[in-house]
Amino acid sequence: MARVHIDVMLKDEILDPQGQAIERALPSLGFEGVRGVRVGKHVVLDVDDRGDLEEQVADMADKLLANPVIERFTVRVE
Amino acid sequence: MARVHIDVMLKDEILDPQGQAIERALPSLGFEGVRGVRVGKHVVLDVDDRGDLEEQVADMADKLLANPVIERFTVRVE
Repeated sequence: MARVHIDVMLKDEILDPQGQAIERALPSLGFEGVRGVRVGKHVVLDVDDRGDLEEQVADMADKLLANPVIERFTVRVE
Repeated sequence: MARVHIDVMLKDEILDPQGQAIERALPSLGFEGVRGVRVGKHVVLDVDDRGDLEEQVADMADKLLANPVIERFTVRVE
């Protein structure tokens, strides 16, 4: 059993209003010097171990978790 | 300038309907043996380097990014 972390983020060229809202709110909470805030999804799942694990998970992310037109994803196996 | 990754997830004891929906959809897409799917937020930001970086970011996550009643967060500095 492997624990897999998948991060799904908007591509850099796609506007991220949620990230911008956070960036604008931070100074009023006393946090200065923060830039480039981007918000995405973090998916954690447990998968049965097998040889092609990373390939399978990437396929899964591509088909179900991310919209490849506007999002990119990274996979981390623990 | 440090790049910081913050993962905000629902606490384990809180029901995660989005994760359950994904888990139920996976077999029909041909992915078997996946369990315990949980979905949360992934926030990426660039912060000016300073000594108390991790502490500052944890404070930020606690005040603005996560709801500490139902969510927990992890911070990773790159």
